[in-house]
Amino acid sequence: MAKTDEQLKEAAEMDHHHFVKTLAAFKFFGPHLLKRVERSRAYYHSLPSAHHKLIREFDENLRNVEQCISHNNDLIVNIIKHSAPDIFNGEHAYELNPNSTPNGKDLNDGQTVAVREKFGPFAFTDTEMDKVRSALKQFVRDWSVEGKPERDICYQFVIDDVLELFNPKKINPADVNILVPGAGLGRLAWELAHHGYTCQGNEWSLYMLIPAYFILNTCKQINEYKLYPWVAQFCNNMSREDQMSPVYFPDVCPADLPANVHFSMAAGDFVEIYTDPNTWDCIATVFFIDTAHNILNYLDTIWHILKPGGYWINFGPLLYHFSDIPGEDSLELSYSELRLAIKRLGFEIMREETGIQCGYTQNPSSMLSYNYNCVYGLFRKPLTEVSTANIISESTTVKESE
Amino acid sequence: MAKTDEQLKEAAEMDHHHFVKTLAAFKFFGPHLLKRVERSRAYYHSLPSAHHKLIREFDENLRNVEQCISHNNDLIVNIIKHSAPDIFNGEHAYELNPNSTPNGKDLNDGQTVAVREKFGPFAFTDTEMDKVRSALKQFVRDWSVEGKPERDICYQFVIDDVLELFNPKKINPADVNILVPGAGLGRLAWELAHHGYTCQGNEWSLYMLIPAYFILNTCKQINEYKLYPWVAQFCNNMSREDQMSPVYFPDVCPADLPANVHFSMAAGDFVEIYTDPNTWDCIATVFFIDTAHNILNYLDTIWHILKPGGYWINFGPLLYHFSDIPGEDSLELSYSELRLAIKRLGFEIMREETGIQCGYTQNPSSMLSYNYNCVYGLFRKPLTEVSTANIISESTTVKESE
Repeated sequence: MAKTDEQLKEAAEMDHHHFVKTLAAFKFFGPHLLKRVERSRAYYHSLPSAHHKLIREFDENLRNVEQCISHNNDLIVNIIKHSAPDIFNGEHAYELNPNSTPNGKDLNDGQTVAVREKFGPFAFTDTEMDKVRSALKQFVRDWSVEGKPERDICYQFVIDDVLELFNPKKINPADVNILVPGAGLGRLAWELAHHGYTCQGNEWSLYMLIPAYFILNTCKQINEYKLYPWVAQFCNNMSREDQMSPVYFPDVCPADLPANVHFSMAAGDFVEIYTDPNTWDCIATVFFIDTAHNILNYLDTIWHILKPGGYWINFGPLLYHFSDIPGEDSLELSYSELRLAIKRLGFEIMREETGIQCGYTQNPSSMLSYNYNCVYGLFRKPLTEVSTANIISESTTVKESE
Repeated sequence: MAKTDEQLKEAAEMDHHHFVKTLAAFKFFGPHLLKRVERSRAYYHSLPSAHHKLIREFDENLRNVEQCISHNNDLIVNIIKHSAPDIFNGEHAYELNPNSTPNGKDLNDGQTVAVREKFGPFAFTDTEMDKVRSALKQFVRDWSVEGKPERDICYQFVIDDVLELFNPKKINPADVNILVPGAGLGRLAWELAHHGYTCQGNEWSLYMLIPAYFILNTCKQINEYKLYPWVAQFCNNMSREDQMSPVYFPDVCPADLPANVHFSMAAGDFVEIYTDPNTWDCIATVFFIDTAHNILNYLDTIWHILKPGGYWINFGPLLYHFSDIPGEDSLELSYSELRLAIKRLGFEIMREETGIQCGYTQNPSSMLSYNYNCVYGLFRKPLTEVSTANIISESTTVKESE
């Protein structure tokens, strides 16, 4: 159903509001962390003098942490200033003036701000600050030397499969269309383009799209920028230096792509924006499929937009991002339930591996690490579509544990 | 300062209220989980029929999950019925009648119940439900065969050290007083008593004390009870069976202790209840020291109550439980800052090891695991107390990174 002009205008306004608010969240992250340091300092000063003698470097250590936070904040201001100038006609440069509420609008979506921290016309929850924190750690995973171990585990599967399935010695890689949904800061999509494939990254979150734009369009040389990705981590530090250790990015020059390669990033919801059938030769999902309310919608879309004979490569856990978020729908399938659904939909399972240990934006020096026990799968949409009715009939005898 | 009769009476009433409310939290955990399953079922039924065909075992799988939840709930009712009959003169048997509010009191500490789920006269937050969830997982860690790998990493350090420092072939272990603060469900303290040492476990949380009492005083035989510890885990399951896999407890008979051994569990705040100086031969803290608002208060207490020449054995990470909890004070030291404070307080570092990988109530089949990179330390309070002034003067040249 086509939208009316009024609806389109309203949607554009909402998008703009969301964009400006995300920029403000990035900008507020520094002040938010500085407040947190201030609370630590206040508690330290309330301690008895005997305790001050035991940890007398503490105050100075906090000052060093503050310097790292300030450095990150300068970098964020730079990202905001230089990124995405062609979105919303540069209106993102709008000043986040603490005393003005532009257009007299409620910029907090009408929600209560009781548990939010206020900043200019906006106010933020811890969840929004966590999204900035995750984005900064994503710089490490996708664009630093320190992120290579993580990339080598999960992206390499995809790259190796693509090089084998679409051998550049036999096929012109520019003729192979690859889609990477959940592209984050774009490294995997860039790697595939770097190998000459026509590749599009797709990402929904502005918390990823804004820094991705900065890296892909602004960074010109290796190790151009410094970032303190772990400075918000106050617990589980072996030493205070670990909290303040810097990383440099990018570890490669993002502009270093073969001439005339088709590489793009598309903003939006995977299910909504990819509707053309039989379009892609390959779809690569890494730490992505568990971001759906209903993972079967992702499966439907992948099946629909893959060319007959096309491949879906998947890697990741099943965290289900909307699970246990109040008011959000979430369908949490086990891997064996998901695997059955994939087969019943008609995919052929070409390769499969389980139990692959992989971190996600891990701080290597932290005393706490989250390790994912990932599954990898290479699936193929058959050249001749099998009747869905047959598939369903055939698989009624299939047990979950097969 | 001595408390007045009125203050003592008020404190006792608050304790009683807290006790009854914790019992109610345990009892509510089953209904809480069943509601969660019901939400999953409702979303499943809202899906299009094409999706039902892809995952048609889903509804039946949820019914099996419900049966496990009901089994756990029966066990919890048993724990409540049989545990701690001597606390508050058996008043815990008070019926948690949904329609009555005993004494007309506000049983929710006067807090808003907007985000709480109501149950009888009480209402619960997700945090309280998480405490029950953690307690059920603690059964696995402390009292099942499945928990042995975790116990072998962290408790064995302590047991080996104690056996070496206080060799039962040379000393009568009954003459050695050992304290285990943060005893949880009591396994480490029990193990030391099992070796003949005079041992007291100390625990603050009723969420641990109530099941600890049940295990230590009610369980009579190996594998007497069955529990589904992972049934609340809807994400990161390889198969639905993983969510429903049972464990049996206890893996040893808790009553199996040497005759006349002194073994006890003491309820209360470590810093408040241990004030007698030079009392303990050994204090063993495992995954405990990061539970303080101010870790230096724990250090002070350990120093104060250890006999000269006594030993402190520590194992764990530095998660700092009050970090980032709104309104709570928290002092987050890095390990090197903590280590300096330990030395400055006067402890001798006898042994030290860092980078020991250890999980905490890990579900071995989950696609997500939390791994702690732990530190272990054996510290000694010198036989002759060194002047604190000297220590402080001597250590001004010590760098954090030493």
